[in-house]
Amino acid sequence: MKIELKRTGDNFAFEAANPEGNKMVIDTSAANGGEGKGFSPMQLLLVGVAGCSGIDIVHILKKQRQEIISFEIEVEGLREKVEEYSIWKEITLHYKLKGKIDKEKAERAASLSHEKYCSVSKIIGHTSKINFTVTVEN
Amino acid sequence: MKIELKRTGDNFAFEAANPEGNKMVIDTSAANGGEGKGFSPMQLLLVGVAGCSGIDIVHILKKQRQEIISFEIEVEGLREKVEEYSIWKEITLHYKLKGKIDKEKAERAASLSHEKYCSVSKIIGHTSKINFTVTVEN
Repeated sequence: MKIELKRTGDNFAFEAANPEGNKMVIDTSAANGGEGKGFSPMQLLLVGVAGCSGIDIVHILKKQRQEIISFEIEVEGLREKVEEYSIWKEITLHYKLKGKIDKEKAERAASLSHEKYCSVSKIIGHTSKINFTVTVEN
Repeated sequence: MKIELKRTGDNFAFEAANPEGNKMVIDTSAANGGEGKGFSPMQLLLVGVAGCSGIDIVHILKKQRQEIISFEIEVEGLREKVEEYSIWKEITLHYKLKGKIDKEKAERAASLSHEKYCSVSKIIGHTSKINFTVTVEN
């Protein structure tokens, strides 16, 4: 699997393209000399862990014939400096589901994702504590 | 730092928004039941490590008054299954620079990034071997 990036302009922004032909822009924040034109590399890790577990939860709840009307995820990260770099010391996810969904099933799906299936969670879990809450609105 | 995701449609795609107001779509591939509408969560890790180190390299070469005309990065990942999830076992980056750039300076910048500065490389490095090559066209 190969992804290609190309610097755009004279600053820090790059455009990335995946094999499926999708494109996205990454950049650094204005505070770090960038222009905030896209997601930062560290933000991509938060999107990755939220997206990966969100996809798992949809998968599991679909198999259990739960009817999802809407699904929003908030993901917050707390950084910690380590020498010259930094990690996400703590990541907190909030899964907000609406639909004909059994709350225990949704909580079990989120647990299963982080314990067994979500590759991004397993990878980032080496340096981050990952917490989550689940709310279901019927 | 908070990022919000919202499921779009009835399948696996989510749209993410960062505090700067940028948006991106994530999805799974058609092979996994998705529609390939965006980057997959695991692809985001590759974009993250390429972007993070690319930004570092631009930073360092700018300080050294090297003149970058263009900068492309190829990043390839090799997956390995571990129980029910998978990791990027090996990630290979190819930094392709054009400009009035000293090749040793560019190689040193790439090394410094992965050894000291690039947070995403440090985080993913717990489960991935990360290799890179640098080419400079004057």
